[in-house]
Parts: sequence; structure tokens; C-alpha cells
Amino acid sequence: MKKPLLMDLEDNVFLEGDALVVIDRRRLPGEIVRLRCPDHEAVARAIEEMAVQGAGDIAITAGYGLYLAARKAEREGTARRDEALRGAAARLIATRPTGYHLAALVNKLMGRIGEADGSAPASEVILASLRRALDAQRRISEDTGRHAETLLASGDRILTHCFAGPALLYMLRLAREKGKDIRVVCTETRPYLQGARLTAWSVSELGVDTTLITDNMAAHCMSRGMVSKVFAAADRVAMDGTVANKVGTLQLAICADYFRIPVYILAYGGPDAKTPRGEDIPIEERDPREVLEFRGTPISGPGVKGFYPAFDLTPARLVTGIVTAKGVRLRET
Amino acid sequence: MKKPLLMDLEDNVFLEGDALVVIDRRRLPGEIVRLRCPDHEAVARAIEEMAVQGAGDIAITAGYGLYLAARKAEREGTARRDEALRGAAARLIATRPTGYHLAALVNKLMGRIGEADGSAPASEVILASLRRALDAQRRISEDTGRHAETLLASGDRILTHCFAGPALLYMLRLAREKGKDIRVVCTETRPYLQGARLTAWSVSELGVDTTLITDNMAAHCMSRGMVSKVFAAADRVAMDGTVANKVGTLQLAICADYFRIPVYILAYGGPDAKTPRGEDIPIEERDPREVLEFRGTPISGPGVKGFYPAFDLTPARLVTGIVTAKGVRLRET
Repeated sequence: MKKPLLMDLEDNVFLEGDALVVIDRRRLPGEIVRLRCPDHEAVARAIEEMAVQGAGDIAITAGYGLYLAARKAEREGTARRDEALRGAAARLIATRPTGYHLAALVNKLMGRIGEADGSAPASEVILASLRRALDAQRRISEDTGRHAETLLASGDRILTHCFAGPALLYMLRLAREKGKDIRVVCTETRPYLQGARLTAWSVSELGVDTTLITDNMAAHCMSRGMVSKVFAAADRVAMDGTVANKVGTLQLAICADYFRIPVYILAYGGPDAKTPRGEDIPIEERDPREVLEFRGTPISGPGVKGFYPAFDLTPARLVTGIVTAKGVRLRET
Repeated sequence: MKKPLLMDLEDNVFLEGDALVVIDRRRLPGEIVRLRCPDHEAVARAIEEMAVQGAGDIAITAGYGLYLAARKAEREGTARRDEALRGAAARLIATRPTGYHLAALVNKLMGRIGEADGSAPASEVILASLRRALDAQRRISEDTGRHAETLLASGDRILTHCFAGPALLYMLRLAREKGKDIRVVCTETRPYLQGARLTAWSVSELGVDTTLITDNMAAHCMSRGMVSKVFAAADRVAMDGTVANKVGTLQLAICADYFRIPVYILAYGGPDAKTPRGEDIPIEERDPREVLEFRGTPISGPGVKGFYPAFDLTPARLVTGIVTAKGVRLRET
């Protein structure tokens, strides 16, 4: 059993001198490409262009972007440091609108700088906070994975979508250590293929039996008894229980409901108190070219438009249970 | 308004001397590549490898394969002509198991040869039959499209999957001629991308507003009011009303049912009397590599298995209506 590269963020996103190195997830698993981000703008682009992805991971990465902005201001002795940091924070927060962890962490770091008494440079305040956030995130992933594992019975066939993050890997590793027979089916998750490139690769490195399907095969697999549980992540959970996650989650949940298969969400945190209802969650729309092309090659005719909503909203009644570091909260029936 | 290349089969599959030319659909719309098939084995491979696809189109193409086998036997003065033809027929029928039109047509052509009094060579008997079949197929497509068009209201937003064949194009052309405002959303239909490469391209050539999405975005589009009707084809309809069609049709139908959106099937014919129930339809499984690779490039890790069921089964209760050349048969409610 190998430790998957994406199991712990510090293995694939880390500081190296005054730059952030991001292992480019768009090139995994075929190539390990180090993307060097010398400033917060490069970090913002790495997030926007999905060199790094996942609600928790882009939050910490954005935090490093703020750190680089602070280091730059200190190195250059910028008079308007606070203005520069506010600009960097706004830039980083604007990268991906659907999740809320990123904005929450960047705002928290800005708060920490404001509270600091000036005895330490802002960059050190940010770095100390970030290290705590990173530790907390790993604990949350481990604890979420541990609670999720209690939902698994030997013989389970799990369907998962996109990359549900480290908690999924912790869950599967623990189930394997306990000797449970678990198999995983991954949807490839077009257009970025996170399911094929990140999840299926990571899960198979754990020694778990892993099968890749295209996104249109999920219901057929359910109809053939190949799926006993669905696990997905959440970029944001609203107070009404609506789950925002990678586009495709909604149709998996509808099909799972049709076939009476439970759907569990690895949420990495409770609902966002600032988001009362699902309708309040903005759905990021990405460049239509990402749908009209595959790795730069057009796949359709010249007169065709593309549409690329990156997330969708799954209503609470289609979610069997939400798993966080605190435990499993099942839907009231 | 251009005439789409795939609207009439004789524009993209035709005899040229003693060979069949197939415009390779795997390369459309980027390139117009003529695949020359000198014998029935090359025709069988073109069908297996999806250089040509679609229930009706592969049937006629297989018929041409039988014609080439007969021509060869006559040219070479083969003593065992009947044996050679039976072998060719079996080879062609074995190419794709899920549809029934192909086997039905090849068996019919074999029957015609058996009935012929010997005054004409087998190849001429086949060719005459094939020309009638081709004419009949175009009439069926036109009539099916004409009946389907009566289901459309101005303002409709159609979601379609894979390439639902010429009837879809006839339907849309007629709606446009009548001035109906129709827009079409196409699922790309992985792994072969027929929706992107064939449908979206053909529909946009008709001058219809066409939007391409990935297969995981369908339910999101339905949830946002972007879909008022779903249209798909059928490779086979069982006597119990079960529809076998390109994998992904089932989950579209489940999601459409969830959102109370009607689903219509362009069936090119009635149910197959030899197939009492959906369970009797064999689901073709194709090479898993086609899921693990994109145009030859691996998209996942080395330990990952692929699964590629090419079709799925949609139960009758999820189908609002079946359209054939005879008219629209709505589900009894």
C-alpha cells in the first residue's frame, strides 16, 4: 500500500524559499510537474486554472498566496502593506466562488494580521496560522475518514465522483486495515477528469480494487448491483442541507435515490452559517472552451456553444448522511 | 442551413467500385477521412470499431459487407459460395450484439438470396434489396422525424444524448421550417463523444442553437430550466417497452422523471417481437481501454481497471412516448 501523493497536502503544495510549489494536478498521474508560484498572482492562477483543486486544498493554497504577498511587501518595505495585502486577499478570494472555505480562511488570516501587536511580521503571523490550519485540516480529514469508515460493511461497492479529498482515502485505508472487502467505482468526471486522474489513481495506490467509468455509466452500474453506497465531497453545505459539489453529484444522487442506494457526503465541516439556502450558493461557470476541447483539440463543430457549470446543488432530501470530523449526521426520515 | 453529412446515409457510406467507402465518424467533425473497406472483414471492423455507428446505419453498412462477400465469391468463382456467404453473414452479425436491426437485415438478405431463382447473381439480389432498405430507412427517418416534430412547441429546449440519428435532424429541420424556436443541448457522450462530434455538429449545421455539455451536467441543466424535453434513439425496444440505447440514456430518463420532463424515443421501428423483455437484450461490453485512454493517452493510474458497457436499459415507465414512422405512442398513464 503506497501513500497517495494527494493524501496530505504538504506532499503536493509546499513552500520552497520565497515561492510556493504546486504539483500540477492537471498533469497527474502521468507526470509529476512542479508548478513554481513566485507570488500571490501565480497562486491565484494555479487555483483558477485548477493546478490545485478541492475545497480544503485551495483554501490552504490561497493562504500561502497571502503569505507570499506579505513576504513581498516586507522584502520590498512597501509603505502600503495593508493595502497590498487587502488587494492580494481580494484577488485570491475571487478565484473560485462556489466553495466557502477559501474565503473563510483568507479572511481569518487577514483578521489575525489585524489582531497581531506588530511584534512579528505579518508573514510570520500568516505562516503560523497556516500551519495550524494545515494540521487542523489533516485532523479533520482523518476524523472524517474514521467516522465515514463506520458506514462501510465488508462487501460494499462504493461509487465516488470527482476527487472527494483525503477523507475518502483515510476512510478506505482504515477499511482496508480492518480487512473489509471494499471496491470502488470512480466516475471520470469530465471535463477535468479528476475522477480518472486523481481519485482512481489514489484509490488504486491504496491497493483497493478500482474501476473507472465514464460519467454516463453511473446509473447502469447502479442498475446492475455494482454500487451499494455513493460517497462524494462538498464544496459548501447550506444551512438548509443543500450540498454544493462538483457538477454531476446531483444526478448521481437522483439516480441513487431511484435505486434506493444511500448517498454520503464527506463535508470537511458543518454547514456554512452565512449560507441559509442552496439558492444562495453561487455556481461557478468556467470557460466554455474547456467543454468544447479536450486537451486543446476541438471535439465539436465550429457553430457549437459550450456550457460549463463547475458545480451543482443537491437538495438535502437526496443526501442520506453528512460526515464531518464530529461524526455522521443522518437525514431525518 | 446546410444539409448535415450524417442526415442521409448514402452521403457517408457508399460503394466505390468493388469497395465500400465509410466516412470515418471517429474523426468527424475535424476531418473527413474516407475509410476504404475492400471486403466484408474490413466492413465488420469498421462497424466494430465504430467508424460507423447507429442502429439503422450499421445495419445497411453490414448489408454492404454481405454484398462485397458475394461479389468476391462471384469474381473468384468460389465453389462454396453459400458457405462463404454464411460465414460473412455470421461475422457481420457478431459485430455488435445489442441492436437487432443489423442481424435482422443481414438475415433478410440471406433469405432473399435463398429465394432467388438463380437468374441473377447473389450480389445483384443483395444490392437491389439494400437499395430498397436504404430508401425505406430514409422514409422511416423522415416519417419518424415528422411525427416527432408534432411533439415540439416553440420555445422547447431539447436535451439529446449520443447521436439519435437522422430522424432527430429531420425533426429539427421541419421545426425550423415551421418557425418554431427550438434550442438543443447535447451531452458529449463519452467515451466516443458522439454527442459532441456527430450530434452537436449536425444540429448546429441546421442553424439550430446548439449547446454542448459533458455527461455529468444533464441534471444541473434540468434543474435550471434549460431542458423541456429529452429525445434519444433506441438500438432495440423489447416487447415490454424497455429501451436499449447508448449508455447514459437510463440516467437521463431517471433525472427527467425526477424533474417531470418528458422523454421521447425515436425508435426507427416497433418493438422487436423476438425480445419479450428488457433482460433479454445483451449489453455489449467494449474494450476497457476505451475508457482508460483518451485518443491513445492514458487518463488514469496503472492499477485502475476500466468498464465500458456500451448500452443501458431504460424501463418503459420512464419513457413518455415512443416515436416511429407510424406515429407517436404515448405511455399509458
